[in-house]
Amino acid sequence: MGDLCGSNGQGAVTRVLFCGPYWPASTNYTREYLQNYPFIQVDEVGLEQVPDVIQNYHICVVKNRRIDSDIIAKASQMKIIMQYGVGLEGVDVNAATEHKIKVARIPGSSTGNAVSCAEMAIYLTLGVLRKQEMDTAVNRKDLGVPVGDTLFGKTILILGFGAIGVEVAKRLRPFGVKVLATKRNWSSDTLPCDVDEMVDKKGGPEDMYEFAGEADIVITCMALNNETIGIVDDKFLSSMKKGSYLINIARGRLLDYNAVFDHLKSGHLAGLGIDVAWMEPFDPEDPILKFPNVIITPHVAGVTEYSYRTMAKSVGDTALQLHSGEPFTAIEFVN
Amino acid sequence: MGDLCGSNGQGAVTRVLFCGPYWPASTNYTREYLQNYPFIQVDEVGLEQVPDVIQNYHICVVKNRRIDSDIIAKASQMKIIMQYGVGLEGVDVNAATEHKIKVARIPGSSTGNAVSCAEMAIYLTLGVLRKQEMDTAVNRKDLGVPVGDTLFGKTILILGFGAIGVEVAKRLRPFGVKVLATKRNWSSDTLPCDVDEMVDKKGGPEDMYEFAGEADIVITCMALNNETIGIVDDKFLSSMKKGSYLINIARGRLLDYNAVFDHLKSGHLAGLGIDVAWMEPFDPEDPILKFPNVIITPHVAGVTEYSYRTMAKSVGDTALQLHSGEPFTAIEFVN
Repeated sequence: MGDLCGSNGQGAVTRVLFCGPYWPASTNYTREYLQNYPFIQVDEVGLEQVPDVIQNYHICVVKNRRIDSDIIAKASQMKIIMQYGVGLEGVDVNAATEHKIKVARIPGSSTGNAVSCAEMAIYLTLGVLRKQEMDTAVNRKDLGVPVGDTLFGKTILILGFGAIGVEVAKRLRPFGVKVLATKRNWSSDTLPCDVDEMVDKKGGPEDMYEFAGEADIVITCMALNNETIGIVDDKFLSSMKKGSYLINIARGRLLDYNAVFDHLKSGHLAGLGIDVAWMEPFDPEDPILKFPNVIITPHVAGVTEYSYRTMAKSVGDTALQLHSGEPFTAIEFVN
Repeated sequence: MGDLCGSNGQGAVTRVLFCGPYWPASTNYTREYLQNYPFIQVDEVGLEQVPDVIQNYHICVVKNRRIDSDIIAKASQMKIIMQYGVGLEGVDVNAATEHKIKVARIPGSSTGNAVSCAEMAIYLTLGVLRKQEMDTAVNRKDLGVPVGDTLFGKTILILGFGAIGVEVAKRLRPFGVKVLATKRNWSSDTLPCDVDEMVDKKGGPEDMYEFAGEADIVITCMALNNETIGIVDDKFLSSMKKGSYLINIARGRLLDYNAVFDHLKSGHLAGLGIDVAWMEPFDPEDPILKFPNVIITPHVAGVTEYSYRTMAKSVGDTALQLHSGEPFTAIEFVN
């Protein structure tokens, strides 16, 4: 990557574009981190303006903007397209590679992103177990209803045992649960050494239907790609126990909307907790949110002071390193 | 207690009165547990009717009914006044003792009550850390706001380290937090042997103000009595850090309403999560609920399938044991 510093040497300005307007703290915190470096310029424009201005920038932080080959073709000065986090499913990596643009994520295990997402997964899980009819009870001046469920004694299936899944399992352990997990490759060197203490049963993608039959709660922690899109479909949901719960803190389109809708309607699913949706922002009037035990949060699983300050530093350091031609220390390239 | 079987021997009916109408599952689950024992009768009447019928019953499950000396004087056949859980602050134990009525709780450590309450404490804690403005964001079709806080890196003060406090601490450990706790007597034989692994700093009641100054989150897990009523007052709240959070899953009147209100108003408290309130049921229009980061749940911390089925068995077994004159195995007498 040494050649990257060519166009951004001493004297020039390195320009970073954030695709807005959502997750505003990512831009604001990065600006704050870089406030003493006038030779780094941080801008944010709305999603629809990105194609018009992208030719002026050296780094693009995509957030939820889809970066397709048409946009990439215009990004004539672009060196790095990156995510403020880990999910790069909206970036046409092949087109970027063709245009000699590197694509990068910020590894979640070191920034607090995985920790933050894991905490949100626990929050949503406890929320559906306790039943969201709690609010109705408060408003009706009822007491001691509804009867909730404990995590204690439950079996939890974690789909995708990457950085987030590991942090979820670690936190679940003292709740007195059984943890099942699926992962493509269990020999990965990114797994912690005490993985066998966290997970009672490990499987590959082919085991997910069998594991679903044992689980009271399924938590999706996978990346979204061609293999995982819609993976929580009618077949999978039908494999789950009647009265079980589904939590998604990863990407909305891992879930097949119609299948989830039907299983909530039939009562096969007793609850749904999602931080991510099929379209974002999601219509607050969507009928799937009207079932009695559904929680939605505004895609904030990874949005915490801890992770956002750390990731602002990652973007800031990347800009400074690009500017000075130093090696990149904060990001992980995927091409 | 051998003399208790005298009036309820073979042939007679042992009558159990639940003070309704709240926490309805306590009555229903106890009835279900006793459905094959026609010689045990389980009734529920509304709070205000209790004085009129109490003379007909041998066991009274108080729930949130205050049982004062006037009512006790009428309870001519009463053998046991008990709670469906642990809190007996509404029962005039001295008057009961004078009338030779035993008063009992169901120990929380064996029924799942402590586990259930601990899970609720974690739920409410994560809820205030993430900010309840999440709902507003969903409705406004915003994404990635508000910026929440993680449990990770925080210091938590547990006020009252009984059965619930222990379960809270155990679950907090893998979240990467520092745990402080106060307790009257740390030499208690009810403490688990690994308490030093759960708690970073132990103190007595006199340390609570100093500990509050270190804590980001305070969780009250104390019994309510003359010493603890209003213990979270202006002095205590002022000792807490600016921007800290308060969680109460124990009893509403541990908190001084005006002091909590003032500290929410000033922003000194960044959030409040309560399962219990000063009056119950609590007015859903109370101004304290209108501050932006306040969560209230309808006194359901201990209300889970797990604990309610177990406690129904405890009440049922107590009734059966009273009926047959066998020793009591499920309850703990306080007089």
